[in-house]
Amino acid sequence: MDLSRRYAETRDAQDPIGHFRTRFHIPDERLVYLDGNSLGRLPLTTRDRLRDAIEQEWGGELIRGWDRWIDLAGQVGDVIAEGVLGVGRGEVILSDSSTVNLFKLASAALDARPDRSVIVTDDDNFPTDRYVLEGLAKARGLRLRTVETDIDAGIDPARIAESLDDDVALVCLSHVAYRSGALADMVAITTAAHRVGALTLWDLCHSAGSVPVPLRESGADLAVGCTYKYLNAGPGAPAFLYVRAGLQTELRQPIWGWFGQRDQFAMGAGYDPVESIERFQVGTPPVLGVYAVLEGARITAEAGLPRLYAKSAELSQYAIRLGEGLDLASPADPARRGSHVTFHHPQAWQICQALKAQGVIPDFRTPQRLRLGLAPLYTRFVDVWDGMARLRDIIATGSYREFAAEPGRVT
Amino acid sequence: MDLSRRYAETRDAQDPIGHFRTRFHIPDERLVYLDGNSLGRLPLTTRDRLRDAIEQEWGGELIRGWDRWIDLAGQVGDVIAEGVLGVGRGEVILSDSSTVNLFKLASAALDARPDRSVIVTDDDNFPTDRYVLEGLAKARGLRLRTVETDIDAGIDPARIAESLDDDVALVCLSHVAYRSGALADMVAITTAAHRVGALTLWDLCHSAGSVPVPLRESGADLAVGCTYKYLNAGPGAPAFLYVRAGLQTELRQPIWGWFGQRDQFAMGAGYDPVESIERFQVGTPPVLGVYAVLEGARITAEAGLPRLYAKSAELSQYAIRLGEGLDLASPADPARRGSHVTFHHPQAWQICQALKAQGVIPDFRTPQRLRLGLAPLYTRFVDVWDGMARLRDIIATGSYREFAAEPGRVT
Repeated sequence: MDLSRRYAETRDAQDPIGHFRTRFHIPDERLVYLDGNSLGRLPLTTRDRLRDAIEQEWGGELIRGWDRWIDLAGQVGDVIAEGVLGVGRGEVILSDSSTVNLFKLASAALDARPDRSVIVTDDDNFPTDRYVLEGLAKARGLRLRTVETDIDAGIDPARIAESLDDDVALVCLSHVAYRSGALADMVAITTAAHRVGALTLWDLCHSAGSVPVPLRESGADLAVGCTYKYLNAGPGAPAFLYVRAGLQTELRQPIWGWFGQRDQFAMGAGYDPVESIERFQVGTPPVLGVYAVLEGARITAEAGLPRLYAKSAELSQYAIRLGEGLDLASPADPARRGSHVTFHHPQAWQICQALKAQGVIPDFRTPQRLRLGLAPLYTRFVDVWDGMARLRDIIATGSYREFAAEPGRVT
Repeated sequence: MDLSRRYAETRDAQDPIGHFRTRFHIPDERLVYLDGNSLGRLPLTTRDRLRDAIEQEWGGELIRGWDRWIDLAGQVGDVIAEGVLGVGRGEVILSDSSTVNLFKLASAALDARPDRSVIVTDDDNFPTDRYVLEGLAKARGLRLRTVETDIDAGIDPARIAESLDDDVALVCLSHVAYRSGALADMVAITTAAHRVGALTLWDLCHSAGSVPVPLRESGADLAVGCTYKYLNAGPGAPAFLYVRAGLQTELRQPIWGWFGQRDQFAMGAGYDPVESIERFQVGTPPVLGVYAVLEGARITAEAGLPRLYAKSAELSQYAIRLGEGLDLASPADPARRGSHVTFHHPQAWQICQALKAQGVIPDFRTPQRLRLGLAPLYTRFVDVWDGMARLRDIIATGSYREFAAEPGRVT
């Protein structure tokens, strides 16, 4: 492989989805942004849509805006279903945060397996997932069976399979590991879980918009995901949830809110949820956030997951090649990775600060890891080249040592 | 009382908070908007703040924006605490929707009274509140004791008191009734609940920003409220929750999310919630919505609840006076009302449509009720005069009969 910057420029010139970068608000072209897996960039259509939604719809139509907003969370769910996840209309809806959705769907799954007493997850699952499951297990007197996972290699499907028996109600895992980017084998694990009669709940926060998600192929039951990473919907934008069509009327989530109610505005006496994905809604949807997801998901759907995934694999392979000699803390095989790549270094925190000081934005993750998000919609090969060149220089010269060693807050 | 429009103009000229109307985006001055209790208007500072938050912070700072966003939900909670609710810093935080917050706090309260088996509410409580409590009662094998309330007169504190015994864990009621505007006696009810050792949870959706809320005076334990009504934070903006300082470490909410975790970014193994209001947070806060609440709450705090409540009482008394002969479906005494007033009419739905066709925006509520929200920050006496004049005319001429009789969706 040619390691010159010229080569990166050539790759960018040949990139079939390179022009999508022009669809984003990029005020500083010199900034090398390698954290789109924490917070995606602002699409221009989102900026415009939000301005209209704020001034014309909220400001001008006022309460009458609800005529168009009332079903928006489901309509945007359909865009994600068809354009991002490859599932059917009516199987995805926007609602709440990923954590609240995990709680709702995990509770619903446990209610559907009342005679079973075990929840399976892994010890490398994202903290909020582990905490939610821990809380549910405690509240219901269930056992949380936490399978050990190598934090760099990711989930071993054989280990998950070994943990399964007919007392397992629910298997809840992340599809792409938040730290290493390791991709879990959704098909193998879901098949194993179904073999013992357990339901599966997948966290797609680091998958949606970056990798194909085999919900349909695997027969996965439930999923949640966030929209502010690869779907570029802005900080704290509403999350989505997926419930396989055949399961929807069988499951009932625990927070009985009026946005799940049949004939909502009759304000009837008892809770009687609709027989569709809307029963997994709770309260009034955040309209501005829902619009931001609409625009972000549309761009993703337009680029298409095959092209996005192909480019993301090329970008991460390129980063790994340019980082040869560094301690890779992600699977080396691109077929086993999502769209970010992680390196281990004892001074990762300081290196992270040194990179920021040089206009490169990576992410730090405990323990001692530097995580590089390579969002394929707007990350260029030259961004990878520039970022890796500065990283190598910072490490080679030891210039990171002038930065404080104390870890701080990053999301 | 002088019933001429000139009188309304004079009252507007003398209104000590009349100038606050200029702080809002009002593209159509002819529109008579009497639904600010469903969706408040857009403040100009919110429009500007959101533009900056979208383009400069999200678009420009990207992930670095979290340095300023991470504690924003609590900072805005403090603005609501001090400027809107008259409670202390650290007692209020923004999080989720009102419904999700109701679920969280009701669950927490029930966990704190494990030997009690009854939840008390009333049959006129807002549907989502009733549904949440119904769901919790069912999941935990508790009884939901639903006290009968006159839908126009509001909650009778004596009836609530009669329903209480030492098996009651929680009393959950709305402070201002969503239909009639009737104000519940928070002090009397909380005192009675505490006498039997029950906790109280108040829904402040129709109170926050319109009436003084005696959380402190009553010793109320818990409260939730929405921000898109009188706090003018936009459709589906994040809700707030209140937990009395002395109770915070005693209670633990059921959705164990990473935004409640001590040393959140250590990503530690077990859930260990912080000892403060942040433990009632769950997932990543919706930053744009939180900023909108900040600006909306600031304007409310600047006008001040005493002036807002005084004006709201004057506006609703004026509407009732101009509506003499109509069937009032709200308490006649302004001291017993929030900031909206409701009339009963068998053809309320048609009248509602007829008013909209004439540029007056009221709200319809089952059964057969026309609800007029008189948000004191921007509603003028001439708005009330114009709205009521058209209402009287529509009823007198029977012109509403040309509109379809079928009720549709309104929030």
